[in-house]
Amino acid sequence: MKYTDMSAAELQAELRAVDAAYSEFKAKGLKLDMSRGRPAANQLDLSNDLLNILQPEDIKIQAGLDARNYALPDGLPECRALFAQLFEVPADQVIAGGNSSLKMMFDIISSGMTHGYGFGPWGAVPGGIKFLCPSPGYDRHFAVTEYFGVQNIAVPMTAEGPDMAEVRRLCENDPSVKGIWCVPKYSNPQGITYSKATVEALAAMKPAAPDFKIMWDNAYVVHELTDTPDELHNIFDAARAAGTEDRVVSFASTSKITFAGAGVAAVAASPEMIKLIKKRLVIESIGPDKVNQLRHVRLLPDVAAVKNKMKRQADIIAPKFKLVLETLERELGNLGILSWTNPKGGYFISVDTMPGCADRVVALCAEAGAVLTGAGATYPYGKDPNDSNIRIAPTVPPIDELKIAAELFVVAVKKASLEKLMGS
Amino acid sequence: MKYTDMSAAELQAELRAVDAAYSEFKAKGLKLDMSRGRPAANQLDLSNDLLNILQPEDIKIQAGLDARNYALPDGLPECRALFAQLFEVPADQVIAGGNSSLKMMFDIISSGMTHGYGFGPWGAVPGGIKFLCPSPGYDRHFAVTEYFGVQNIAVPMTAEGPDMAEVRRLCENDPSVKGIWCVPKYSNPQGITYSKATVEALAAMKPAAPDFKIMWDNAYVVHELTDTPDELHNIFDAARAAGTEDRVVSFASTSKITFAGAGVAAVAASPEMIKLIKKRLVIESIGPDKVNQLRHVRLLPDVAAVKNKMKRQADIIAPKFKLVLETLERELGNLGILSWTNPKGGYFISVDTMPGCADRVVALCAEAGAVLTGAGATYPYGKDPNDSNIRIAPTVPPIDELKIAAELFVVAVKKASLEKLMGS
Repeated sequence: MKYTDMSAAELQAELRAVDAAYSEFKAKGLKLDMSRGRPAANQLDLSNDLLNILQPEDIKIQAGLDARNYALPDGLPECRALFAQLFEVPADQVIAGGNSSLKMMFDIISSGMTHGYGFGPWGAVPGGIKFLCPSPGYDRHFAVTEYFGVQNIAVPMTAEGPDMAEVRRLCENDPSVKGIWCVPKYSNPQGITYSKATVEALAAMKPAAPDFKIMWDNAYVVHELTDTPDELHNIFDAARAAGTEDRVVSFASTSKITFAGAGVAAVAASPEMIKLIKKRLVIESIGPDKVNQLRHVRLLPDVAAVKNKMKRQADIIAPKFKLVLETLERELGNLGILSWTNPKGGYFISVDTMPGCADRVVALCAEAGAVLTGAGATYPYGKDPNDSNIRIAPTVPPIDELKIAAELFVVAVKKASLEKLMGS
Repeated sequence: MKYTDMSAAELQAELRAVDAAYSEFKAKGLKLDMSRGRPAANQLDLSNDLLNILQPEDIKIQAGLDARNYALPDGLPECRALFAQLFEVPADQVIAGGNSSLKMMFDIISSGMTHGYGFGPWGAVPGGIKFLCPSPGYDRHFAVTEYFGVQNIAVPMTAEGPDMAEVRRLCENDPSVKGIWCVPKYSNPQGITYSKATVEALAAMKPAAPDFKIMWDNAYVVHELTDTPDELHNIFDAARAAGTEDRVVSFASTSKITFAGAGVAAVAASPEMIKLIKKRLVIESIGPDKVNQLRHVRLLPDVAAVKNKMKRQADIIAPKFKLVLETLERELGNLGILSWTNPKGGYFISVDTMPGCADRVVALCAEAGAVLTGAGATYPYGKDPNDSNIRIAPTVPPIDELKIAAELFVVAVKKASLEKLMGS
């Protein structure tokens, strides 16, 4: 029976039962973390061969260079070639870097602020600049532009990606709108893959800013949970067709393929943008860690090897997603108080509570020992206008702990919803 | 006999002999690189244990964390502790990062431009800002500030470090002078270690800018060539005594201790500055490559291990320095056309030709197949006002090739000097 169809007495009785259940969870003294999209230890174990995959005789690389020494600011050619396959672009449009794609994104924004991309520094624009933030989205993206004083503007997400009518409305008449953050495949947190129409619209639209950038964070490019992957249209193809290739800067990393903190990140862009990025790169550093890049191409010589590795990770994490989703369906399927996504890849389940309940749910879970991502984190400035979106990251806890956490979450959602409905 | 004491006929005869010798070198078809301060392959070999020093059971670190996963934006505690010993500061004043200390310096300048250090963004200073560049100095330092449009101002070097009277004169009345680049031990390229008086003067001086920063690149902190190392006074002690602790940002890395391109870099600063740096750090990245940091603390558990590793490197490179210096002494000692440094550590020999000859010497060497650092590179904007300083990096070539290169260099110096003296 839907909570909204219950009488006051029925709600009262339900709350008593839920309160009792919640007290039991609190008594357990749980300590669970579902706050961030981190791989579990046994996922990392799948790449332990990285630890000693190189022998001294392996350190000579293409062109007679030594992977251990300085040089090659744009990365190991072998590694750029691997990422080129993932990005589906030529290798000379790829730069392989350090362990963090976020750092590469930060650098692109930072460089925009101080130097710009052919049309003056963004930091010198009178009144400041703006960035579009499809929401719910990835809090760390929004934090980067916020750090630089950029005005983050929330754009609603649809089942096909950002609401393109709204994107166009915002950027086509305002030259201070300099870009948009996108996680185009299995978006963080909803697991939405942008449709071909959305990809083509992003490439074809006519922003007022000639230096508009699409920050295309393809973080989950091979991060499948099923055997029927979503297909993401190649945005570089769309942009080349539309004559807007310099608009796209794409990112990926092996963080959730091998070791989260010790992988390799890469950026792909048009030949012209790569030239601009390299201008900064050669000033910034004498080169990335090519030994770690070499480890990676030995472990993962091609995309087939990458996909195989991801298949084995899915064997570990798909059951965790299934457990959470089944618990939500079983316990809340008929109550009308929560909706959720059923992602085919990525790292998150996104749920929406009744308006005004998300913050309370997160607080209730925390009080009982289960840390979730802060409510609102998926919106610019941490402010979800409806206070309803919560991001669940089910990968870290072992499945027995996750079971408890999911059940606690259900009880917290019930309790917060009942409190809301009863006006307390 | 000094060239300057020679008659026109004597000079003529000498030039004929030198030309003949030079032609012989050209005929050899050499291909040597002494342009950059890179370790030789057999120096890198000394750290090959890094390649497989970690086993899967080693990846748990302090605080129950997993080195392979995300977390710890300021680095592995064990690695910060190691650098704390090198910097001679408490570990909570150290951040351990990626493979490049240059990148950390770049970030400090970049952050100064966009956010500043408590007194507004440097990029917003009307008329721009200035940085002091003790010269000859490290070209990559000067390139960073140049990249950000900062006006680089050359300051003469003395045997005790930068000319402090000039440093004071430049910064004490001009609030747009925001900092100074320093390589305080075995400076690049001269191998000069700043005296205690210089270190204390840098700490005690009163720049007009309250947010003046000393970029203290302690790149050669343990890079000894002799058994009687120079002692560098601890600038943090001096600054604490002078109440100017926030002025100092110090850098070091294992690039020339282990693998040049796959080491670990670190920054040390006052508690207040570390707080400011971390504000950026947590936005920029989810954390450095802690697996590589763990490799390093396993290979180098303490400073004694670091010094032992450096001793073995000195066994390889000290003879190279000796060979070059002996060749210069033997061939040019009495000619009055070249002066040079005799460094006790670091990676370079710095020479000064007669005014107006450096560019020609470098060109003559290049024409005969030996690449040196471009003449002038050690000065801001690549412009040596005397056209006399040349940086020699003797570490890369094997000793037999180095012998040929040193002899070619001698011939090139003679030829350029003779041409100059004869007014051609």
